[in-house]
Amino acid sequence: MPIETPLLDKVTTPEELRKLDRSELRQLADELRDEVIDAVSVTGGHLGAGLGVVELTTAIHYVFNTPDDKLIWDVGHQCYPHKILTGRRDRIRTLRQKDGLSGFTKRSESEYDPFGAAHAATSISAALGMAVARDLKGEDNRVVAVIGDGSMSAGMAYEAMNNAGDRGGQLTVILNDNDMSIAPPVGAMSAYLARVASSDKYHAFRNLAKQLAKKLPKRLYRGAEKVEEFSRSFVTGGTMFEELGFYYVGPIDGHNMEHLVPVLENVRELTDAPVLVHVVTQKGKGYEPAENAADKYHGVSKFDVISGEQKKSKSNAPSYTSVFAKQLVEEARRDERIIGVTAAMPAGTGLDKFMTEFPDRCFDVGIAEQHAVTFAAGLAAEGLVPFAAIYSTFLQRAYDSVVHDVALQGLPVRFALDRAGLVGADGATHAGAFDTAYLGCLPGIVLMAAGDEAELVHMTHTAAMFDEGPIAFRFPRGEGLGVEMPEAAQFLEIGKGRILQEGTSVALLSFGGRLGECLKAADQLAARGLSTTVADARFAKPLDEDLIRRLASEHEVLLTVEEGSVGGFGAFVLHFLSREGMLDTGLKVRTLTLPDIYQDQGSPAEMYEEAQLQAANIVDAVTRLFSDAAVSAGDLRA
Amino acid sequence: MPIETPLLDKVTTPEELRKLDRSELRQLADELRDEVIDAVSVTGGHLGAGLGVVELTTAIHYVFNTPDDKLIWDVGHQCYPHKILTGRRDRIRTLRQKDGLSGFTKRSESEYDPFGAAHAATSISAALGMAVARDLKGEDNRVVAVIGDGSMSAGMAYEAMNNAGDRGGQLTVILNDNDMSIAPPVGAMSAYLARVASSDKYHAFRNLAKQLAKKLPKRLYRGAEKVEEFSRSFVTGGTMFEELGFYYVGPIDGHNMEHLVPVLENVRELTDAPVLVHVVTQKGKGYEPAENAADKYHGVSKFDVISGEQKKSKSNAPSYTSVFAKQLVEEARRDERIIGVTAAMPAGTGLDKFMTEFPDRCFDVGIAEQHAVTFAAGLAAEGLVPFAAIYSTFLQRAYDSVVHDVALQGLPVRFALDRAGLVGADGATHAGAFDTAYLGCLPGIVLMAAGDEAELVHMTHTAAMFDEGPIAFRFPRGEGLGVEMPEAAQFLEIGKGRILQEGTSVALLSFGGRLGECLKAADQLAARGLSTTVADARFAKPLDEDLIRRLASEHEVLLTVEEGSVGGFGAFVLHFLSREGMLDTGLKVRTLTLPDIYQDQGSPAEMYEEAQLQAANIVDAVTRLFSDAAVSAGDLRA
Repeated sequence: MPIETPLLDKVTTPEELRKLDRSELRQLADELRDEVIDAVSVTGGHLGAGLGVVELTTAIHYVFNTPDDKLIWDVGHQCYPHKILTGRRDRIRTLRQKDGLSGFTKRSESEYDPFGAAHAATSISAALGMAVARDLKGEDNRVVAVIGDGSMSAGMAYEAMNNAGDRGGQLTVILNDNDMSIAPPVGAMSAYLARVASSDKYHAFRNLAKQLAKKLPKRLYRGAEKVEEFSRSFVTGGTMFEELGFYYVGPIDGHNMEHLVPVLENVRELTDAPVLVHVVTQKGKGYEPAENAADKYHGVSKFDVISGEQKKSKSNAPSYTSVFAKQLVEEARRDERIIGVTAAMPAGTGLDKFMTEFPDRCFDVGIAEQHAVTFAAGLAAEGLVPFAAIYSTFLQRAYDSVVHDVALQGLPVRFALDRAGLVGADGATHAGAFDTAYLGCLPGIVLMAAGDEAELVHMTHTAAMFDEGPIAFRFPRGEGLGVEMPEAAQFLEIGKGRILQEGTSVALLSFGGRLGECLKAADQLAARGLSTTVADARFAKPLDEDLIRRLASEHEVLLTVEEGSVGGFGAFVLHFLSREGMLDTGLKVRTLTLPDIYQDQGSPAEMYEEAQLQAANIVDAVTRLFSDAAVSAGDLRA
Repeated sequence: MPIETPLLDKVTTPEELRKLDRSELRQLADELRDEVIDAVSVTGGHLGAGLGVVELTTAIHYVFNTPDDKLIWDVGHQCYPHKILTGRRDRIRTLRQKDGLSGFTKRSESEYDPFGAAHAATSISAALGMAVARDLKGEDNRVVAVIGDGSMSAGMAYEAMNNAGDRGGQLTVILNDNDMSIAPPVGAMSAYLARVASSDKYHAFRNLAKQLAKKLPKRLYRGAEKVEEFSRSFVTGGTMFEELGFYYVGPIDGHNMEHLVPVLENVRELTDAPVLVHVVTQKGKGYEPAENAADKYHGVSKFDVISGEQKKSKSNAPSYTSVFAKQLVEEARRDERIIGVTAAMPAGTGLDKFMTEFPDRCFDVGIAEQHAVTFAAGLAAEGLVPFAAIYSTFLQRAYDSVVHDVALQGLPVRFALDRAGLVGADGATHAGAFDTAYLGCLPGIVLMAAGDEAELVHMTHTAAMFDEGPIAFRFPRGEGLGVEMPEAAQFLEIGKGRILQEGTSVALLSFGGRLGECLKAADQLAARGLSTTVADARFAKPLDEDLIRRLASEHEVLLTVEEGSVGGFGAFVLHFLSREGMLDTGLKVRTLTLPDIYQDQGSPAEMYEEAQLQAANIVDAVTRLFSDAAVSAGDLRA
């Protein structure tokens, strides 16, 4: 059943939106909501966040003069309505597909996206930079950041507010308080916001719009006493923000156009100091299946609009996440010192299972990766066995904590790095491309990667048992290879790889999730007469030097294969071979890595193809090296 | 004139300290202060911070049962009095020397250092980890973190408080408010603390100790109303901390033993929720030259105790920092879009000069590297030309901002990475060892290193002129080589190195500050009959592929030399040679990098020797490769 959107059909740009009568905005928002639901039902993606800000998005573009006024969405999960209203409706059903629209804001996609996003809590910093640039250039556009309450647990948001409040000047921060980011929010700030919102939600608005309209244009709020008077009139909460130098306005019902528009119109005139507008919304608003779901349809597969039923594809193998989660629970039953630490991703990392069984031993610290890691270091210093389960891409935010608080002190914190490598629809911002490089350069760390889901069982166990220092293990997004699962987890000897099949001519040395492709490639190479050894390095640090020596000395060609950037596993192997003088002998070594580009989203297969990390690419890379050797070139180049 | 410390001589452990009568603490503190001054006068180091916490250190060890009670000093600049009181007085005059005491807290050094420090704002996270561990283990020791007001601008401190306040349980955070970290503090939080401290400094204490003593043991403060009553009795500020779930106590005169001890004794009994004790101190307290100095003798050379005069060693060449600073000012005079951004290090990075001449174009955002970088990204997005001047080691804290906000979006932020490589007395925590690895793996970044101070002029200029994407340039701590300085800065062609001298047998390819040693090594090799080419790569990304091809094809041996970890420049060269098939020919390639250990402090020469990066080490590395070649082995092994 096609949806009907007569008003939205006429509004293809924010400029046209701003020509509407205020009374038409309600209808526009309703149509926009229908369009978002319909589009995501065919693409999958982040639904709940966008539904929560349909009215807010409409009101912001109605009041602010985008794109001259800069609008920065934090994270970007909520940006689909924004994309529809800013000239991208015709492509909205390509969301998160290869060559389609990004699931996040993206500078290269539209002038209405002045700053790209995906990781949390960057918006205020970027907005402040843009506000300072405006002031230095003598311009007078407005800068608006929209940030969720979940992101307020991130230190970066605090750093930016601390700086912005001290500086003054126009900057509007809209706090989209839906009491829910990806998981229920945690932390004292969240509790604080809830107190403010619950006590004042309806009371506070009563005179807000009217009085703002009356008072603000006259700039009566300038002096300190006036600010106080102004605050007292409207607000019973917000003190924290005021102490940080912000005007606080709110809380406001974020689904009520008649509240939003006049407040934003008045806020737009506040140019002498930053303002925090506290808007209360409901994630998943207006779509009953989302409103009723525990995660508010945060991220969904394609779904049936009427029933809300998601079309999950059949899986043939367990996901790496679930394998890790299950094994960690096993380990925790064995060893009561094991603690789970997650940074606002209990479900994504699988720690929700751990949390259910061991609520006292699992800590969701909020979107606060730095704190998560140093907190884990504190646990380890006192003899506990912490697992910091953090996506590879998000561990970037805790890099100094890993270096300075964990690795340098040799503390046995265990890092479970989910989503290491390419991540499909989430695209470049979420790719875990760099962890092998940025961790492998650290003295004293142990760094593993799981070649398949059975290996992940062993690595989880190995990390639990190893207590001599920090240890990290990376594993890909998605399903495993469907291998047989072990009856019992094994402790893997540190720094020892394994050989899966022996050959004589070519050695493929895999680190991580491309092991299956290496095995396929070996079969194809065998069919072409190239006897191939396949080894699983298991460890990038310490390297299995004996294994590498053997592979190098017994084969004509050695290929390393990894789902990571340059400077990682392949580089460590090259360093070693060079040091040992094993490159001096004419050995042909090649390192297959992720390409030196940021890969846009696509299906996993599309992305691996682009990365040249499929079995066929491995075969090609090998056969090119034999093109002038004894093997028939014609055959090999087929 | 030897100092007299009769009481301190008897107190060699905190246990003995706790046997003293309270009335003796004043004298002990005075003697401790004299000892700190005397020790630092012979070692150099961080003086002002320690002098500010002499009384606080004494009081904490007197009241808390260290080392069972865990005491965590944030940053660690202030830990010298703590070291003296915790059994390390006999080695205090080895501070910051090779094989001596670290200038920071260090777990391997003493059981009284339960968590090492050096970078700011890690203490509350670590302390919370230890408090949680204690509770899970069913123990009842106390955990105390001491954090300066400067560190409160760091998001990590907020993340930790947000988490701690929500959780409850015993945790004491002592906010050492000296209104001064390394530079004067910035940000709204700092202004907030100043308001609280100034309004209440003397007034608030009047009844504080007495009433705390009376009320707290009875746990009258438990219920919410009681907390409020309790707060109102003592405190007119502190609301922000209370909103975050902390009890707030203070402000307290941090130099008055009669205030400190009873308050801490009572705070020690607060075990149901975290407490923030706001202690006001004076950096450099009790030593007139320090009190009168603008930087409060933050970091000093050896000095004369009577006059306070520091013994600066004569320098033969300008420091890299000053060369960068001078050139940046030059560039800023030419281009008004150039902006300086520093994270609480205006003097250390040389941006103080820029700030003096262009106060409106220089931003000290506080200890907030993540925000600094994303703020700079916002500036760049709007067409300005930001220079983020951050030490290599501190940029680790902004890694995700570099990846996600700058590099991925291709925004032209300029990173001036001071202190790249070994840093001497500050030791492993401050070494800039990893930046080439963690930046070089990022697609689209330009990464340079200055071979000498003249090169730094060109690189600063090149970064200012380059606007196609992010660009970083690293340079060492300390003085340049004394080379002739250029009359005019040149724009360096991106991705092009240079050959300094031509030879036929050996090629030394330097990236960064070991260039001088490579030139020396080449002379020594020439004396042994090995004709040596010396090239300066200038760029680790993009690589000068033509140069590398030429070096590889025209020499028997190619050595890369860099002051950085594995996975950096040498790795990129190996990746390239491998990809090109240039390793297949029997070329002897070696990569000299920093060793795969955390190097403890020492003099620069001692550390380079340990790292095997002196000219003699380079010569050794080369000659070993010729040991069975035509050249006389006897000669080469001499």
